[in-house]
This record gives sequence, C-alpha cells and structure tokens, in this order.
Amino acid sequence: MADERTSRSDERAESIRRAALEIAREVGYPKLSIEGVAARAGVGKHTIYRRWPSRGALFLDAVLTGNDDGLDYPDTGDVVADLREQIHAAVDLLGSGPLGSLYRALIAEAQHDPSVLSALNERFIAPQAARTVARLERARDAGQISPDFDLDLAMAILSGPLYFQLLITGEPLTHRFVDRVVDALFTGLGPRRP
Amino acid sequence: MADERTSRSDERAESIRRAALEIAREVGYPKLSIEGVAARAGVGKHTIYRRWPSRGALFLDAVLTGNDDGLDYPDTGDVVADLREQIHAAVDLLGSGPLGSLYRALIAEAQHDPSVLSALNERFIAPQAARTVARLERARDAGQISPDFDLDLAMAILSGPLYFQLLITGEPLTHRFVDRVVDALFTGLGPRRP
Repeated sequence: MADERTSRSDERAESIRRAALEIAREVGYPKLSIEGVAARAGVGKHTIYRRWPSRGALFLDAVLTGNDDGLDYPDTGDVVADLREQIHAAVDLLGSGPLGSLYRALIAEAQHDPSVLSALNERFIAPQAARTVARLERARDAGQISPDFDLDLAMAILSGPLYFQLLITGEPLTHRFVDRVVDALFTGLGPRRP
Repeated sequence: MADERTSRSDERAESIRRAALEIAREVGYPKLSIEGVAARAGVGKHTIYRRWPSRGALFLDAVLTGNDDGLDYPDTGDVVADLREQIHAAVDLLGSGPLGSLYRALIAEAQHDPSVLSALNERFIAPQAARTVARLERARDAGQISPDFDLDLAMAILSGPLYFQLLITGEPLTHRFVDRVVDALFTGLGPRRP
C-alpha cells in the first residue's frame, strides 16, 4: 500500500517534469509558468509547490532527472582517450540535441535564482568534479599527467572552455572542439622544456 | 547646429542607459521594462526603440558603454605577469563589484536572445580575443609560450575557467583564483617531460 502510494506519486512527479520540459521546448523557459505546467499535467498548483519550491527548482529537476548519471569516466588506461570519451558524451547530452537549449536556459535561470545555482552545483557539477578529479588522480599516479598540475582546478579548466563555447560564443560544441581543447590543455601554454 | 543636435542626442542616450542600469540594480534585470526606463529617463518609448531594437540590446549597450575599452594587455616582456594584470582588471570590472551581477544578467539574456549573444561577441568578446591572441603571439615569438599551443583557443582556454567560476559554481572570482588558473594553464596537464 505504501509502495503503491509512492509509485503513484513518482508517476505524477514524472508527468509534471515531462509537462515542464514540453512547455519549455514549445515556448521557451522564460514563458514557462507553474499554472501552465499544472494544467498540462492535470494537477493542482499546490501539488507542484509541495514538491518544488519554485519554477526554477522544478525546471532544474526536469532537465537533470534521468540525465545526471551515466557520465562516468571510462578507465582504459589512456587518460586522454578517456577524457575525450566522457566529455564527448557530456556535450552530446547537454551541449546540443534536445536538452542543449534547455540546459542553457537552466544556467540563465541560475544567474537570477541562487537556489537554482546551488542545486545545480550540488546535484550535477560537484559530482562531475569529483569524478573528474578521481580519474585524473589515477592518471597522475600512473605518470600520465604532470604532478605539478593543480587538480583542484581540473573541473574549471577542463569544462570552462566548453561552457565558454556554449554560453558566450554560441558556436557549436563539437567533438572536434573538445579534442582540440583537451590537446591544448595537455600541451599547456608554458614553453617547451629542453 | 548639427553638433548641438548630436550632443543632445548623446546626452539623452546616456540618460537612458543610466536609467536602465539603475532599474536593473534596483529590481533585477528580469523586471526591467522599456516602459520603466522611458518613465525614469523622461522620454517616450519610441525614442528608446528608435535606437535599441529590444530590451536586451539596450541593456547590453548600458552595461558595456564606458566599460568595453581599457582592457588592453600590458607588454612588460613578462607574459605571465601581463596576463595576470589584464585578467585581474577584467575580473575586477565584470566578475565582481557593481557591474558583476549585471554582466551575469546580460549573459543570461544572451541565452534567450540570439541578437544579444551576437552583439556581445562583436562588441566585447571578439576584440578581447584579438587582443589576447596578439599578446600571446608576441610571447610565442619571444619563446615564452609553447609553439605547440593552439592560439586560436587562447580566449576559450584562458577565459573559460573564469566564466565557469562566475556562472556555474558562483564562487568568488578573486585575483588568487586567476593566478592559480594562469599557473595551471602554463604547467599544462601533460606529463613532465624528461
């Protein structure tokens, strides 16, 4: 009985998330309203507010649910190949395709709503950063990356150029661009050592 | 007489920009309206629309006017010191202080309005990228950076981690963070060469 209630509640949550994504795709996030989502999902506004404190919180949950796992790094022993593969998967998911413009809208909302920014970090960015550092630590232990490289900066340095392309230049976030960035970061700016 | 007309028109434009910034600071960009700006500046809405096609275009011009020059790189001969100094100035201007949250709001608007994105690039990002590449080319010619580093990526790689901090983690964009990023980029991820 408790299970049945949970499962009905999960289904309702899923239909609310789906309604939010559909509406955001149709009219853009700025015009998404809790009223509109409630009407499309066939629930009352209070049902939505009981679970999500704001429009931004609902949108974040809708964009990330089902998409915030599965971005583990492979470990084939070749750190460059593994970084490329994982980052290709991440940009396929969030930098283009059906989620791409919604993810940009989510980041835009985070500039105005600090609770969306912190939820984005807790739920998505921090776990990604932890996975990135863990993979790079193994590479460092295997002598594949410089022991002088500041691993605490790994997420900002590896992801930053991709977010710059996604949010600032707006140019396509291709696998080729990812590969060039990874190569440039491995090369480093410093002069070729003798 | 023509000069007098120009100067009056410039003054009116400046008072419109100032009104837009004041209102954005007071209530946040999402609540900025052309009506509100017109009322505060004491002009008609058509006067605003004659010069700026949209709310986003006016906001971009208001944020950047008076702030989009003066970010030249020094050339003391020490490329690391010069990069640090220029990037410190850029983050003091746009990453914190009175313009910081307005610049974040501008980037958020660019996620929804492609004309704001392209204007941001033409007016601010592309000239910055050109200055960055020019300074790094001189450094390369002086043997201070690796000839293998892909200079076309310089802007994405140097600025990306800072935009990541500003827009994604929301952590403070300090001079110390800038210095750590510059050092890490010079070190590079690649293994220490023998």
